[in-house]
Amino acid sequence: MTYCVGLLLNEGMVLLSDTRTNAGLDNIATYRKMFVFEEPGERVIGILTAGSLSVTQTTMARLHEAIDDHEATSESSIMLAPTMLKVAEIVGNTLSSVRQDIDSKMEASKVSTAASMIVAGQRKGGAMRMFLIYPEGNFIEATEDTPYLQIGEHKYGKPILDRVVTPATSLDDARKAVLLSMDSTLRSNLSVGMPLDFAVIAKDACRVTTRRRIEKKDPDFARMSEAWSEALREGFTRIEI
Amino acid sequence: MTYCVGLLLNEGMVLLSDTRTNAGLDNIATYRKMFVFEEPGERVIGILTAGSLSVTQTTMARLHEAIDDHEATSESSIMLAPTMLKVAEIVGNTLSSVRQDIDSKMEASKVSTAASMIVAGQRKGGAMRMFLIYPEGNFIEATEDTPYLQIGEHKYGKPILDRVVTPATSLDDARKAVLLSMDSTLRSNLSVGMPLDFAVIAKDACRVTTRRRIEKKDPDFARMSEAWSEALREGFTRIEI
Repeated sequence: MTYCVGLLLNEGMVLLSDTRTNAGLDNIATYRKMFVFEEPGERVIGILTAGSLSVTQTTMARLHEAIDDHEATSESSIMLAPTMLKVAEIVGNTLSSVRQDIDSKMEASKVSTAASMIVAGQRKGGAMRMFLIYPEGNFIEATEDTPYLQIGEHKYGKPILDRVVTPATSLDDARKAVLLSMDSTLRSNLSVGMPLDFAVIAKDACRVTTRRRIEKKDPDFARMSEAWSEALREGFTRIEI
Repeated sequence: MTYCVGLLLNEGMVLLSDTRTNAGLDNIATYRKMFVFEEPGERVIGILTAGSLSVTQTTMARLHEAIDDHEATSESSIMLAPTMLKVAEIVGNTLSSVRQDIDSKMEASKVSTAASMIVAGQRKGGAMRMFLIYPEGNFIEATEDTPYLQIGEHKYGKPILDRVVTPATSLDDARKAVLLSMDSTLRSNLSVGMPLDFAVIAKDACRVTTRRRIEKKDPDFARMSEAWSEALREGFTRIEI
């Protein structure tokens, strides 16, 4: 499995993904699930992926190919698309067609080829937008009412987001929120694992303003995780019922 | 869906269930999912149910019938079974056979007949034991290492249990823990709903020592829920990262 989360806030967008993949419990590996496409100051697109690795890798490869193609058009390349909505459409169509290709080879076995993605970005002069692309290629968009999107193993990390994230949340608080959301998921589900990829796209910067890989033994993450456990236990003790 | 949780602690057992059932999102009802069988001082059995309502209701009806049968034996009646292990076996076999009966009628439609149960109890002179019965009738048992069992929509409420529950947890803290675990689930999943059924079986009492229905507008539960939100937000604010 996987856990990826994206927040769409007034101050910018925050993205976090884990890196664990597995083909059965006895075949575990580390793969990047966060991809950034940038023309700094002009256009930035962040993509998070979950699901069948062969599907997501092939989809990312085709998106790259379409960008590098000499005959790339605003209909085929996410770096030329005129709007973020068009970017979401291109990603959705690519994902859906890759999945169909692979599905047709997989009919005999019952291996799932489902995959989903979060696409977040901004073009110069446009608004920040964030989409969740479903395996079939259709998508939904983050809004003021629901300023976050999750893919993969989303349930363990949802309660903290529901409680603290609003569009007005600061980027610093947002970082804390996604890391704590990930921390709850890491504790409860073995198939989500460190290291983590973290990125911030500040509003109107049209580039990734912060990007960091958080390794397994990261002392800050360990300290935060411990402090949160302590805060939960303390809060738990204080509540009278 | 449903959320039910049982804790097996040194001081006793704590059970909590919601009451919401639904056949589609537009057909929601309230049904008890906690059932108690008692011969006070001699034997107590608590059963929590999740899954297909027709399967769990028929299973409970057959268990009652077997108890009331004049020819009831230690092989057929959970009130005569010599051990809690045998109780779990009888419940598992009944669940499995009911499911097969109903399955055979349901072949055409693709409605799921899966159902699972938590069975907790103690006989005079025996140990407290708690089992999770799978839809196929097999089961696992709560142990010192994992002193809680969950059925239904278990993910949202797991992080809090993982953090605070050990076999040494007091019954008061255990009550808090299961109610907060339920609170997180209620907030994140519409298919889990109030009122709640709560019960405590103190060690060696061989009867339900506390039993309470917590209604939708219960002021204590609302206060606890608010205090927990407050504690989370405070803890969140205090953490530096």
